[in-house]
Amino acid sequence: MNDAVKLVTHAQNIRYDKEQEALYIIDQSLLPTKEAELRLQTVDEMVEAIRSLRVRGAPAIGICAAYCLYILARSIGETDPAAFQAQLRAYSAQLNASRPTAVNLAWALGEMERTAAAHAGDARPALLQALYEKAAAIHEDDIAKCAAISEYGLSLLQEGDGVLTHCNAGPLATSRYGTAQGPFFLAAERGMRLRVYADETRPLLQGARLTSYELHRAGVDVTLICDNMASMVMKNGWVQACFVGCDRVAANGDTANKIGTSGVAILAKHYGIPFYVLGPTTTIDLDCPDGSHIPIELRDPEEIKTLWYEKPMALPGVTCYNPSFDVTDHRLITGIVTEKGICRAPYTESLAKLFQSPPPG
Amino acid sequence: MNDAVKLVTHAQNIRYDKEQEALYIIDQSLLPTKEAELRLQTVDEMVEAIRSLRVRGAPAIGICAAYCLYILARSIGETDPAAFQAQLRAYSAQLNASRPTAVNLAWALGEMERTAAAHAGDARPALLQALYEKAAAIHEDDIAKCAAISEYGLSLLQEGDGVLTHCNAGPLATSRYGTAQGPFFLAAERGMRLRVYADETRPLLQGARLTSYELHRAGVDVTLICDNMASMVMKNGWVQACFVGCDRVAANGDTANKIGTSGVAILAKHYGIPFYVLGPTTTIDLDCPDGSHIPIELRDPEEIKTLWYEKPMALPGVTCYNPSFDVTDHRLITGIVTEKGICRAPYTESLAKLFQSPPPG
Repeated sequence: MNDAVKLVTHAQNIRYDKEQEALYIIDQSLLPTKEAELRLQTVDEMVEAIRSLRVRGAPAIGICAAYCLYILARSIGETDPAAFQAQLRAYSAQLNASRPTAVNLAWALGEMERTAAAHAGDARPALLQALYEKAAAIHEDDIAKCAAISEYGLSLLQEGDGVLTHCNAGPLATSRYGTAQGPFFLAAERGMRLRVYADETRPLLQGARLTSYELHRAGVDVTLICDNMASMVMKNGWVQACFVGCDRVAANGDTANKIGTSGVAILAKHYGIPFYVLGPTTTIDLDCPDGSHIPIELRDPEEIKTLWYEKPMALPGVTCYNPSFDVTDHRLITGIVTEKGICRAPYTESLAKLFQSPPPG
Repeated sequence: MNDAVKLVTHAQNIRYDKEQEALYIIDQSLLPTKEAELRLQTVDEMVEAIRSLRVRGAPAIGICAAYCLYILARSIGETDPAAFQAQLRAYSAQLNASRPTAVNLAWALGEMERTAAAHAGDARPALLQALYEKAAAIHEDDIAKCAAISEYGLSLLQEGDGVLTHCNAGPLATSRYGTAQGPFFLAAERGMRLRVYADETRPLLQGARLTSYELHRAGVDVTLICDNMASMVMKNGWVQACFVGCDRVAANGDTANKIGTSGVAILAKHYGIPFYVLGPTTTIDLDCPDGSHIPIELRDPEEIKTLWYEKPMALPGVTCYNPSFDVTDHRLITGIVTEKGICRAPYTESLAKLFQSPPPG
């Protein structure tokens, strides 16, 4: 395997140290200038780390939250089983409230709560062991899902293709390889040449700080652009496909992802370029009928006005609108790539089929 | 008149001081944190000021360059008329090479060169006086044109409308009021309520640093957004029209303007929102058949990677593509608003008519 690719794809953005019984994350808010781990011990530290995007990316948030809840479970002093379960659910609710849009957070916490409930009658060590195993399984499972998604995604590309991507859905945002950016690392491993255009993704610049960082380090041919340059790059004929991640996919295919994704989809349609959403089935929320039911996180206006800058970028009194995500209409999406395969319209049918049991063989 | 509006619309971004015989500009690269004038004396200082966007905006560059050439003419020691004209043309070529896309720069310098040629046989003081009067006339003429454009633009809006704008085409970019943002100041003067959404306009953030600065100071209801939020703001139903400026309009209506403008036009079309280009007829280049003939300036990648930031935003080795402008297809433009009225498709006819002599009355 290509060492540069392995360096990036096997970096442990979320690392549970069994000997130390400690959870570490790579603090993504410090990248690309500083690579540093941060240990998460208290629920306040965990909520802050998620809210401040020190750990981010829908799958990564889910994995991290599962380990967090295990660590918090270990800290609960209650000996009464019902009181223990109640405290665990309270911690889970605190973690879940840290960010509203990505469904993976709620999904992973739900898995952990169900595991705890199933082992409610066990002795505490057995219950805690079950919780640890569940968190580790969620982690391992995401690694396998990302590998499958990356393979399916790569099957949509040809040697020499240009691909435009938005935000970060690479190894840092997931477990390994990533979703939307996973195919680029796979291609690099196999010596397949692609050209990647990475939107910088304002306001927090995940495309500049994280995506171009990961791809450049892995030796992928990546060109960083400002979000507003995507139209020109497409018009130049440099883009054969758009690959984006997702934070929640509704039953009809409407997809919430980083703010600006819907604009990329509209541009792609205008220029006749296929637009693909890539993500694990844990990001699909069949209980959500369409995009209008997805809660969109509004963030601090200071992210637009001052963060990352050495001097203020606008007068302090200026009003800002700072939604973290937007919803891409399912009619703009060419395909939704999951670890189980590629769904096409009509999505209400193709997405539902993903969750049906396989027919008896 | 509303004092807050007057403060902004009558600020002298380009000021020729007759007593001092000196040209001053407001150094726009320091806004919004510092309001400071910069005196331009040598051709190198002038070229640097234009290239570094200390003075910017297609009409403002034209006005500034006219005064610059007058000041340079005064400095020419040659007594031989032909040598004087040759040196003046050399200075003009140096100024003209500072930025390639906006046609106003070449237009204003051409006007000055023609004036010099017409007075080639005059005594030096008379020739210099003619050049000064031409520069001042270009300046005064732009003030009148902006007022007319603002009136025509405002006629397209109704009380309570939301208008999305990109980059800066306000007083700082022109002479007074502005082009694309002129109607907002006129509305404020008249107590007409509008909501303005200003794209921050990466990489140099003219929307955040200049447009939201000017509009906020004038008391206009302005909300600053990142460029990639325009799609969501439109989807929310908050935008009834898009107003943008222009750096060069080809004979068929294709319009070069700040990078990202074409994306706004495609989004507007998708959401069924009218999209207007506003600019003086000096921005129309009938010698340019269509957008493919407009030279697009490529700027320093460091503008994307480091400028305005306290820490690097991407690894130093990352490739960036940094076009300063893009071309909006004429089919995406609802109307082109000039000081002579509003042109509609087919633009090849409506734009050409602007330059025909009025029929004998």
